Formats: sequence, C-alpha cells, structure tokens
Amino acid sequence: MNKMFISAGVALALGAGYSLTAFSQAKPEVMVKQRQAAMALQGKYFGPMAAMAQDKAPFKADVVAYNASLLDALSRMPWDGFDASTKDVKSGTLPAVFTDTAKFKAAADQLQSAVEKLVAASKGSDMAATKAAIGGVGKTCGGCHDNFRQKP
Amino acid sequence: MNKMFISAGVALALGAGYSLTAFSQAKPEVMVKQRQAAMALQGKYFGPMAAMAQDKAPFKADVVAYNASLLDALSRMPWDGFDASTKDVKSGTLPAVFTDTAKFKAAADQLQSAVEKLVAASKGSDMAATKAAIGGVGKTCGGCHDNFRQKP
Repeated sequence: MNKMFISAGVALALGAGYSLTAFSQAKPEVMVKQRQAAMALQGKYFGPMAAMAQDKAPFKADVVAYNASLLDALSRMPWDGFDASTKDVKSGTLPAVFTDTAKFKAAADQLQSAVEKLVAASKGSDMAATKAAIGGVGKTCGGCHDNFRQKP
Repeated sequence: MNKMFISAGVALALGAGYSLTAFSQAKPEVMVKQRQAAMALQGKYFGPMAAMAQDKAPFKADVVAYNASLLDALSRMPWDGFDASTKDVKSGTLPAVFTDTAKFKAAADQLQSAVEKLVAASKGSDMAATKAAIGGVGKTCGGCHDNFRQKP
C-alpha cells in the first residue's frame, strides 16, 4: 500500500496510526443507535461498489473514489459504540463482541486496512485492482459479521 | 478559508467542488433510514465539540481535529437521502424540504462550508478561532433545523 495515496484521507490528516474515540459518555442505547447508523452508512456507500465489483453494475471510477473516501471515515466510526455498557441492549450483536474483544478489534482493524487499500486503488486507473480491493473490503465485512453478528 | 488546509480532507481528495450522489436507487424507507443515520452520527461527533465551544467540557484540540475530519465526511451524506420519493415516508422532515429545494440545498451547502472552515481551524493552534468555527457549524445545524425539521 502506497502511503502517499492515503495522505488525502482521514488517516494522514491526523497522523498515521492515529486513533481516538469520540470523547463522549453516551447512554448505551445511544451508542447502539450510533454504531448501527455507521453500519447502515457503510452499506450505503459499499453496496454500489460491491455491485460494480461483481459486474452487476457498470464500473464508475469516480463513484468508487467518492464512496471509498466516505467509507474511509465510516470505517472508523462504529467501534467505540461496542462499549461494554451496551452488552445488554437489544441488537444483532453477538456476545463474542464483548468476550473476545481482541479478535473483534482485529476484525475492525482489518476493515480499516482493507478500506485504506481501496482508497489507494481507487485513485489509480487499474479497474481490476480496484475491483479486487472492493472485494477485499467485502471479505472483511463478511468475516466480521460471521463471527460477531447474529444471522439475519 | 485557506484552501491548503482542506487538501487533506474529503473535498480535495476528489477535486475542489466535486459533488456526487451515492449512485443508488434505494427504496424510500432505506433512504430515510440512511439520512437519519448520517444526522445521528453528525450529532455523535459534533456534540462533544459543541460542549467544548460552550466551555461545558475541557477543550481538547486532538479530539476536535479528529471529530471535525469525520464530520467533514458526514456533512456530505444526508442530502441525497432527501429524495422526492421519500416525501410520504414518516420522519421529522418538514414538507419545505421537498417544496423549497433551493433553500434546502443552500442550507446543506452552508453546513458543508462551515465544517470545512472548522476542519481548517482545527489544524491550527488558535483555540478561540476553533471554538468560533464550532459555533459556526452549530449555527448552520440550527438554522436548517428551524426551517426544515419538525420541532421535537
């Protein structure tokens, strides 16, 4: 991954590797709502890209670049919402989120890493590489949902 | 507003003035949910900054910079969800959103502009200027809600 390409994204705007929670002591119900909001918006911006990667929709490089840049931000948003205080709030979250926190964090990090690769790819002109990067993001979504989300 | 400062944000990553919808034909109910999600997350990241600007919480420059960068992305997300097809879906939206679209778009643009100013200010070391920029964002939130959202 070419670090240069990330410089325009959220990551380097804040210094590489920078991570921070949103500095709030929200109520558990609010945190659940906020993390679900982040997931819903990840779906909004990832969905069209997934369709393109699967040749179900025409590939549009500018849409991918735009959606990827927003997904970059969104991929950072859900995680502080999985606070231990939310474990008894009704949601699709499996208990493993709160018991196997290291594995859950690793899964979250994998998404962020895959999105950063997609952001980089989306700035190039290699459609195949960009589609592969979209697939890489999708794999991390599914991998995490398999382990940490109830089956719909 | 110093254009240099925005270069690390979403705006210049995509070319100045670039604007694009999410390329999807989502169902009206889904669009409403997505736009509400974007508003909820704007609240998540703006709330702590508003508290700092009002001296209700200690000012933390790194939190402001981080939250502002995410708000930059979020400020772009709700608008395509106010599609005409959603006008009969139950929500807090006032009919003016769909009848006075030019004024609504101007209000949305004002938010994005105010957030860009905040992103710029948050990268400097002038706390007073940053607090003022936070206030500027809050003013655009309230101005739009006054005209386009039902009173809670």
